[in-house]
Amino acid sequence: MLIQRFETNERSSQAVACNGFVFLAGQVARDAPNAPIDVQTRDALKRVDALLAKAGSDKTRLVSAVIWMADIREFPAMNAVWVDWLPSGGGPARAVIESRLAYPEFRVEIGIIAAAKP
Amino acid sequence: MLIQRFETNERSSQAVACNGFVFLAGQVARDAPNAPIDVQTRDALKRVDALLAKAGSDKTRLVSAVIWMADIREFPAMNAVWVDWLPSGGGPARAVIESRLAYPEFRVEIGIIAAAKP
Amino acid sequence: MLIQRFETNERSSQAVACNGFVFLAGQVARDAPNAPIDVQTRDALKRVDALLAKAGSDKTRLVSAVIWMADIREFPAMNAVWVDWLPSGGGPARAVIESRLAYPEFRVEIGIIAAAKP
Repeated sequence: MLIQRFETNERSSQAVACNGFVFLAGQVARDAPNAPIDVQTRDALKRVDALLAKAGSDKTRLVSAVIWMADIREFPAMNAVWVDWLPSGGGPARAVIESRLAYPEFRVEIGIIAAAKP
Repeated sequence: MLIQRFETNERSSQAVACNGFVFLAGQVARDAPNAPIDVQTRDALKRVDALLAKAGSDKTRLVSAVIWMADIREFPAMNAVWVDWLPSGGGPARAVIESRLAYPEFRVEIGIIAAAKP
Repeated sequence: MLIQRFETNERSSQAVACNGFVFLAGQVARDAPNAPIDVQTRDALKRVDALLAKAGSDKTRLVSAVIWMADIREFPAMNAVWVDWLPSGGGPARAVIESRLAYPEFRVEIGIIAAAKP
């Protein structure tokens, strides 16, 4: 069984493809730290798109998502961006919960499992 | 590779079957908001049973569970219901942690990965 | 599809092998409760190694990791031990977030998905 890793450094890989699935590291708004939640969500999802493309999948093939939010009261604003981004009828099994994140400049972190393209 | 989605709306699917696994969205006590933790756990697990059945699995085939609790001090009461529900010898790899949930009327949210039936 | 469970009790299994993957329960420092974060991280990872070996995998085959920390300010000390333990170029897709854990004597809990050996 082949394991393919993408954007690997000493601590993690941003994406790992294995056995028909693509696993993404928790994605944050690298290009928009300290921005409002809608901007951060959009930026993190842009990263999700790029990583899925690298690893052989795309957003029509999401199977699971965990969304960690620094402040769950921002759920509606996050969710509006998510819904706008998500392909119609393509929703993954999702959980959204509040957790303090590793770096205070980020308000949302998105973990994804997708199916690899055939 | 086929991806089957169940109870899909604009933001997510309650279950996704893909590549031999079934992924459930975080399940809460939809029919018992604001109820005590034991009632909420039982109700959420009833939803888990129904979704696994729809998606081609059942509770004898659980492989992974993450249980998010609004108040971890309710762990014993949650766990008693969980143990009662779980088939003997069928325990998944589990993590139980505290997180503020998206809606304050829910005290527990249960995320499941199960193996599909052959 | 075979599901193999390891160290199973009434509530969970410490490892489950299924369909080419190995899922671990959240691992804590069983042998080092109340120890500082570096000692706890090292102890939990020792458990990860042992369980992966039992279930037919090893730390060169990690695909996903979620690390829950009782206090995210301990991230650097946890991460130093993690990096030291991780095989070069073998990083999984990782998310590190803060969550109150089930037992106050533990400061870190590590959830792992690995690829099974062929």
